[in-house]
Amino acid sequence: MIKVHHLNNSRSQRILWLLEELGIDYEIVNYERDPVTRLAPATLKAVHPLGKSPVITDGDLVVAESGAIIEYIVHKYGNGRLLPATDLPTYIKYLQWMHFSEGSAMLPLLLALYVGKLGDAGAPLKPRITSEIDNHLRYLEAELGCNDYLLGAELTAADIQVSFVVEVADARNLLDDYVNLSRYAERIHSRPAYIRALERGGPYRLGA
Amino acid sequence: MIKVHHLNNSRSQRILWLLEELGIDYEIVNYERDPVTRLAPATLKAVHPLGKSPVITDGDLVVAESGAIIEYIVHKYGNGRLLPATDLPTYIKYLQWMHFSEGSAMLPLLLALYVGKLGDAGAPLKPRITSEIDNHLRYLEAELGCNDYLLGAELTAADIQVSFVVEVADARNLLDDYVNLSRYAERIHSRPAYIRALERGGPYRLGA
Repeated sequence: MIKVHHLNNSRSQRILWLLEELGIDYEIVNYERDPVTRLAPATLKAVHPLGKSPVITDGDLVVAESGAIIEYIVHKYGNGRLLPATDLPTYIKYLQWMHFSEGSAMLPLLLALYVGKLGDAGAPLKPRITSEIDNHLRYLEAELGCNDYLLGAELTAADIQVSFVVEVADARNLLDDYVNLSRYAERIHSRPAYIRALERGGPYRLGA
Repeated sequence: MIKVHHLNNSRSQRILWLLEELGIDYEIVNYERDPVTRLAPATLKAVHPLGKSPVITDGDLVVAESGAIIEYIVHKYGNGRLLPATDLPTYIKYLQWMHFSEGSAMLPLLLALYVGKLGDAGAPLKPRITSEIDNHLRYLEAELGCNDYLLGAELTAADIQVSFVVEVADARNLLDDYVNLSRYAERIHSRPAYIRALERGGPYRLGA
C-alpha cells in the first residue's frame, strides 16, 4: 500500500488529494514541522536523504519530488483518469504545468517568504519579487480563462500539481485581483475528494 | 525546424546541448540580458507570456519550462536515445531528476543569488541557505557516486536537466568539497556535443 510521508501544512497535502480523487487506498505517516523554525523534522531524512515532504513509499520504491510522485501515481494507478487528452498540444501543456508549478511559479513566492523574514532589510528585493509573482499569477489567470480547470472542463493531475501555487498566493492575500484564480481555488476546495483529503490529513493552513 | 529562443548565460544552453547530442537541426534566435538588471529582454514575452528562457518553437507549437522542453524533444525526436532503462525504479529515478533540478535544487542557489544582492543585510538568511545548498549537493554527490552519469554509465536527458545545477554551484565555487560532482562537470564539458553547443550558442558564463 502507498504510504504518504505527510508533513503538516506542506506540499504533501496535494498528494492526499490526488489519492482521494483516484480512490486509492493509502496510509499516512505524519510528521510535524518544528514550531519555531517551521522546518521538517530530521526523521524525514530516514525516508529520503533530502529530508523533505512530500515523499511516498510504495513497497520498496521511494519516490520524492511532487511532480514525479504525481506522475508515478497517475500512470501506475490512474487507469487513464486525471490525464489530459492525448493530442500533442494538450499533452505539451500538461507537461508544462507539471514543471511550471515548482520550476517557475514557486520561486518568487518562496523568495517573498524568505526575504520577508528580513523585514525592512529585504526591501530592495521586493519590487522585483512582486513583479515576478504578478508575472506568474497573470499568466495562470490568462491561461485558465473561463475554463473550470487548466486543461479545460475536467480536472487533471496538472491542476493538482499547480494547486499549491494558488494556495500559497491565496495565503498571502494575492488573489483579489485574479478573479479566475479565486474561483478556481473555490472550485478545488469544494471537491469532495479535496475535502476528504483535508479530513484525513488534518488541518491545512499555509502561513503568509 | 526547432527554434531555440536563446538567452545568453541561461538555462537555454542546456537545450542547445540536448539538440547537439541528438544531432537535430535547429535554429537559434538570440536574446541578450539587460547588462544592468541581468533580466531577459521584453521581446521574449512575444514568444511566450512568461518572458523567460528557455522557450522553443517547433512549427506552431510553443514549449516553455526546461523539463517540458527536454521531455518533448527527447520523446519526439530521440528515437529512444538519452532515455533511461525502462524498469520502473530506473524510470522513477529519471522522473525525479527531471523535477529535482528546477523544483528542488535551484531554490537555495537562487536564494543565495538574490539575497547576496542585499550584502550584509541578508546575513540572517545565509546559514539556512548554505545548509540547504549543501543538502542538495550532498544528495547529488552521493547519488552520482562513482557512476559517470546520474543513471549509470550512459548520459540521459536527466543529466542535461540537472547540469545547470552543477554549473551554478561551480560558478559559486561550491564544488571543491564534491569530488564526484567536480569530475561530473568536467565529464560533461568535454563531450563533443557540449562543445559544439557552446560554439553555436556563444560564450556561457554564469555570474556567481
